[in-house]
Formats: sequence, C-alpha cells, structure tokens
Amino acid sequence: MTYCLAIKLNAGLVFVSDSRTNAGVDQISTYSKMHTFGIDGQRQFCLLTAGNLATSQGIVNQVKHDINQGMPMSLMTMKNLEDAADYVGQVSVMQQQKTGGGPDFEASIIFGGQIQGAPPDVVLIYPQGNHISTSSTTPFLQIGESKYGKPILDRIIAPDTALHTAVLCGLVSMDSTMRSNVTVGPPIEVLAYATDSLVLKNRLALDEDSDYLRELKRNWDARLKDAFRSLPHPAWASAWDHPVENPGSGG
Amino acid sequence: MTYCLAIKLNAGLVFVSDSRTNAGVDQISTYSKMHTFGIDGQRQFCLLTAGNLATSQGIVNQVKHDINQGMPMSLMTMKNLEDAADYVGQVSVMQQQKTGGGPDFEASIIFGGQIQGAPPDVVLIYPQGNHISTSSTTPFLQIGESKYGKPILDRIIAPDTALHTAVLCGLVSMDSTMRSNVTVGPPIEVLAYATDSLVLKNRLALDEDSDYLRELKRNWDARLKDAFRSLPHPAWASAWDHPVENPGSGG
Repeated sequence: MTYCLAIKLNAGLVFVSDSRTNAGVDQISTYSKMHTFGIDGQRQFCLLTAGNLATSQGIVNQVKHDINQGMPMSLMTMKNLEDAADYVGQVSVMQQQKTGGGPDFEASIIFGGQIQGAPPDVVLIYPQGNHISTSSTTPFLQIGESKYGKPILDRIIAPDTALHTAVLCGLVSMDSTMRSNVTVGPPIEVLAYATDSLVLKNRLALDEDSDYLRELKRNWDARLKDAFRSLPHPAWASAWDHPVENPGSGG
Repeated sequence: MTYCLAIKLNAGLVFVSDSRTNAGVDQISTYSKMHTFGIDGQRQFCLLTAGNLATSQGIVNQVKHDINQGMPMSLMTMKNLEDAADYVGQVSVMQQQKTGGGPDFEASIIFGGQIQGAPPDVVLIYPQGNHISTSSTTPFLQIGESKYGKPILDRIIAPDTALHTAVLCGLVSMDSTMRSNVTVGPPIEVLAYATDSLVLKNRLALDEDSDYLRELKRNWDARLKDAFRSLPHPAWASAWDHPVENPGSGG
C-alpha cells in the first residue's frame, strides 16, 4: 500500500509520500514514490505514484526517457500544467496496457508543479488517464491509503495556510496513517515548493530512525490524548458508570 | 454506507451506530441499525448491522421471529455467546442466500452482550457467517466506514477505560466519520452495558438537532486545532517559508 498527498496553497505546493511497497506481507520493500523533474527558473514538477510498482516505475522511466531523448512531447515541452497532466495520464495508460491492463496493474498519480508565467497547480491523475484538481474548500489531494489521514487535513488546511504549517499537517496525516496501516511506512519524503520560486530545494527524507518523526509521533499522540481528556463528559454518560446507584439514563 | 462500533471494557460494553442508509445518493433514508434483545436479569444482546438493508432487516426479523415463536434455536435458548454468534451468522448466511448471494447482498454484524454466569463479550460476524472477537490490545470492533474513526479509538481505548470515557470516544470516532463521509449520519445511537447488570437501560439516540452532538463537534474541532497548533514546528520547515532570504533546506 501507499499514502501520498499534495496540498495546494497560495504560498506554494506541499508533497508528502511514504516509501513502503508490498506484494504480499513477506515481500516488503522500500522505494521512493516521489519523483521530480525540472529546469531551474523555468519549470518544476513533482510526481507521486500509488498502485502497481512496475506500472509506477514504467511511468517514471518513460517520462524520464522522453525528457532525455528530447522528444517533442515531454515535461520539458508542455505549454501548461493541464497539457502536462494529460501527457502523464497517457503515459500511465500506455504502461498499464503493456500488461493487458486490469485493476491489478493500475497506478494513481499526484502530479503538480509550476511552469513559468502560470500559477502552480496540482492534480490527481486516475488510472484511466483523466485528472481532477483541488478546490478552495478541499485544497489537497490524496492517493493510496487516504482515509486515516484525511480528518486532520480537512480540519487544518486552507488556501492561506503557511507552507511550514501544511508540511507539519501533512506529516501528522502521514503519522495517523502509519499508526493504523502497517503497509504505509518510512522513509517519509517531504517537498515544499514556494510559489514562483521555480526551484525545488526544500526536500527532505525522514527515515525510520528519524528523531523528528519519532518526536512528532510522541508529541501528537500526547496532544491528541490531552485534547480528548479536555472534552466535557456528558452528564448522562457519567451516570451510566454507576448502574446500581444511579438508575437514570435520561438525556 | 454505515458506521457502527462496539467497545469491550472491563466495565462493560459500549455500542455506537449511525442511522443513515443509502441506495444511490437520491435514496437516503434513516433506519436504526441498533437492535436489542433480552430478558432482564438473565441475558442481554445488542446487534448492529452494516451492508445491504434488506439482508439486515431480514436478519433482525428472523432473530425476532425465532424468539417470538419459541423456536429451539434462538437468542433466548443459546447456552453461551459463542453459540449465539454462530446462530446469528447462520441466519445472516440464510438471508443472503435468499437473494442468490453475492457482495451486493452481504451484511456485516457486530453482536455482543452477556448471558448470566458468563462474562460479557462482543464479536464481529462476517458476511460468511464466521466471527472474530476483540483482543486486549484492540478492544473494539468496527463495521462499515471504519477508517476515519479508527485513529482516536486506537489511541484512547484500553480494557480499563471507563464506560463513559468509551462512550465519549465512540462519539468522537463517529463525529470524525460523519465529517469525512456524508453517507454516515444521525441519529447516532449509543448503548452502554455495565458488566453483570443484565439490563439494557443506558441507551440514547442523538438526532440531527441534538445540542450535545453539535457541541461535541464544535468542541472536538476546536481542541484538535489547538492540539495541532501546539505542536512544535520543525525549524527546517519554517525556513522553507522564506525561500529567498533563507536558501537552506538542511535537516
């Protein structure tokens, strides 16, 4: 399994991905799911993959090949991010067709970045090759094991959130997912792209032994428990603890 | 969709269920998914259902029918909770077979309670009729849309948790699920069964207009946001907000 997410802010884009892949519980490996392409000052892209590992690697290899061979259609030639997303979607569909297709060979992709002269953007590319964007009310996209980590994103992320806050929120979202699903695991990769910077330099990989990840996990667990403990207990439920002395179940 | 959960504590059992059913987005209805059976002082059971509504209703009707007709096999004749769970599993399989079976007609069940002379217990009955119990490290069971609400249960619930704390945690888990999935909705039903009480009297239905539910939602949202805000921001990520002034991406 996999968990990857991207957040679109006024301040820029944040990408977070785990690195665990598995084909059965005894075939667990570590592969980076975060791939970047670009020319400083002109265009920058980040691509996150979830799904079949061979398909995912095939997509990344084809995208690289088209750039390196100077093909007429590549991430370096696309006029806008919309066209670039369509191109990546086509590459994905072609890679899946190589195997005859079917759900086992599908891959989902988060793809984002910026081309000089246009604003940054990020999209989710479905296995069928089409894609969706974020919205101002849901300024994030997720692929893979997305449910455990969604509630905190829902509560915290807004378009005016600061880059570093979104990075922290993305890591908390990843922490919740790792806690509930063993097939999502470190190294956790983080990339923060600042709007109009047109360089990718804010990238970090936090591995299993990362003091920061361990500290974040401990901190968030303690703070969540404190938050829960500080909730007012409903009087009707407190009465339920004393079934003999207090027979009321009133509300 | 549906979200139901049960928690097994030393102090007793807690059941929480939503009441929304849907067959397509324009066919949303409200049905209770919490069904209780018992004789005060002798035995008490609670049954929560998720899945096909016709199958779920068929199961409950058959269970009621077997009790009312004084059949040799019913919830009133079973010697222990294990046998009772097998019986409910058989009823479920029979109801699914009526339609020819298949995933569209499946139902999952949480079933728990206490028979005089034995400790309380709760199990999750799969559509295939077999069942699993809780464990001391995972003293809760979930059916339906279970992922959004699992992290808080993972963090808070332990066998020695008080009944009223587990009720509150169950409601927070339900709140997170409702926030992220519109097909899970009120009324929210709560039942707390105190070990050895052999009566079901601590039951409440919180409807859409419930002041308590609204207040809990507001409170939990505020406290979660506070908890997040109180997390220490990593220095490396704070530097990322100032891409020009501070070009370092060090860790």
